[in-house]
Amino acid sequence: MSLVVVGTVAFDEIETPFGKAERIVGGAATYASLAASYFASDIQVVSVVGDDFPTPVLEDMKNRGINLDGLQVKEGEKSFFWAGRYHDNMNKRDTLDTQLNVLADFDPVLPDSYKNAEFVMLGNLTPSVQMRVIEQLETRPKLIAMDTMNFWMDIAMEELKAVIAKIDMLIINDEEARQLSGEYSLVNAAEKIMAMGPKTLAIKKGEHGALLFQGDEIFFAPALPLAEVFDPTGAGDTFAGGMMGYIAKTGDTSFENLKRAIIYGSAMASFCVEKFGIERMTELDETAIRERLQRFVNLVRFDV
Amino acid sequence: MSLVVVGTVAFDEIETPFGKAERIVGGAATYASLAASYFASDIQVVSVVGDDFPTPVLEDMKNRGINLDGLQVKEGEKSFFWAGRYHDNMNKRDTLDTQLNVLADFDPVLPDSYKNAEFVMLGNLTPSVQMRVIEQLETRPKLIAMDTMNFWMDIAMEELKAVIAKIDMLIINDEEARQLSGEYSLVNAAEKIMAMGPKTLAIKKGEHGALLFQGDEIFFAPALPLAEVFDPTGAGDTFAGGMMGYIAKTGDTSFENLKRAIIYGSAMASFCVEKFGIERMTELDETAIRERLQRFVNLVRFDV
Repeated sequence: MSLVVVGTVAFDEIETPFGKAERIVGGAATYASLAASYFASDIQVVSVVGDDFPTPVLEDMKNRGINLDGLQVKEGEKSFFWAGRYHDNMNKRDTLDTQLNVLADFDPVLPDSYKNAEFVMLGNLTPSVQMRVIEQLETRPKLIAMDTMNFWMDIAMEELKAVIAKIDMLIINDEEARQLSGEYSLVNAAEKIMAMGPKTLAIKKGEHGALLFQGDEIFFAPALPLAEVFDPTGAGDTFAGGMMGYIAKTGDTSFENLKRAIIYGSAMASFCVEKFGIERMTELDETAIRERLQRFVNLVRFDV
Repeated sequence: MSLVVVGTVAFDEIETPFGKAERIVGGAATYASLAASYFASDIQVVSVVGDDFPTPVLEDMKNRGINLDGLQVKEGEKSFFWAGRYHDNMNKRDTLDTQLNVLADFDPVLPDSYKNAEFVMLGNLTPSVQMRVIEQLETRPKLIAMDTMNFWMDIAMEELKAVIAKIDMLIINDEEARQLSGEYSLVNAAEKIMAMGPKTLAIKKGEHGALLFQGDEIFFAPALPLAEVFDPTGAGDTFAGGMMGYIAKTGDTSFENLKRAIIYGSAMASFCVEKFGIERMTELDETAIRERLQRFVNLVRFDV
């Protein structure tokens, strides 16, 4: 089934203790659509780039079955650029530079072929842009998921809440869940956030895994303990993309299937951090993914 | 099978955002032996108290099948006392006061009936005291586990490493594992620590669960997401006690059984934090424990 992925397609400059990568391809929609492409066959990207964005990367995405009809290419303008530096333990990062460029006045336009998508993933963007996407949908999707960040809670909480009220699943990290709800306990935070609209909440905890809430149900997806995290950039988008790709493939929005989906997302994220940028996400195959999933099974399998 | 539990039996003064408890019963051996008593039938405590320690508490422990022949009662002296205050999020605490009292010159003496115990849990104490216990054992136990803390790494690393070299399972938290190994990644830390002697390593991550390492095997035990943590004091000792109690009950030191044991430990710890001090640990029954274990099963059960 079709999956619309909305988000940035951009350049990143990344410094980690392992080295520096200058001006490499990144962006939430890039990571999410690549991750989803291993599962779903009909992925439809909504984004914007400048004319500086490398055509071969876009061609490669198309070859993976990713539809870029909704990707605007702005002549004479530059793509979104983010530069960041990770601390030694990879859990914190400093933003060194943000150049909005084409993103400054991004008006998402859904091609007609996107307007009846069964699944929608709204990557982290201005809430008004996320809302504009929802408004263009002609039929209500089976599931709309969205990501956001603290920044929008600081400067546009009301607009953000208006979008949150319209979606089915919010995918945010623990700090964001705490800020959005005003609750420290993630159990209490989840209750308040689900009361804002979304039936389901996924809370990402980085190296500590992720929690999935729906009604009174709680599921915990572990993160794979890794000897080295090479570059965490895009792990959250890859997690969301893998999760939504699996849901779109199966067309099944039951809680049992969302549990499977969050494990798929966690597995894809565990690959993402193994190399700089999107590199690892372009070289996977079914066998590697199957083996990785089995490691997740083994990690938490017990009988009492 | 018999389980020797070595550690403090003491008084705590605890401040949390929920209130203050003055001079309540605590101590690593108290929490660990209470947790173990729900599983193992022959628990043998090695500790020391002053004559200020309440006899009814000791009688209650005896009634639970906990052998206190190895508990020294020092006439005219005071029991170990610790006072601490938890921060709002319960993840950090400040030590406000530590009065060693009887612990200052504690010389553990194992009754003859303890010297052939199949299982030993060395709670966090001066490494030389932990070593003195090992030296008094007449037969090599099936499994010796130990806890320790950063403090001993700071002031007695060599003595500590000498004890670690003699044990089978180290149970410490993530910060301690990082300090002991000099590695940030817990996977790398585990490899270095197991090279110091212990075949098995359990790393406690508080609200983020626990990892169990043995050779190339990794198992992850989740923590139960809780709406409120009332008092985290003793959770780590309860975790270790529950784990060792289950191992002693089953007599099975296979990795498969250690996985079950760490889930039992996690379940007991999830009870411990629900009330101040040892209160919750004195009122459990098999039904409550069985239901709690089922919540752990549900929390991580999925099929892919």
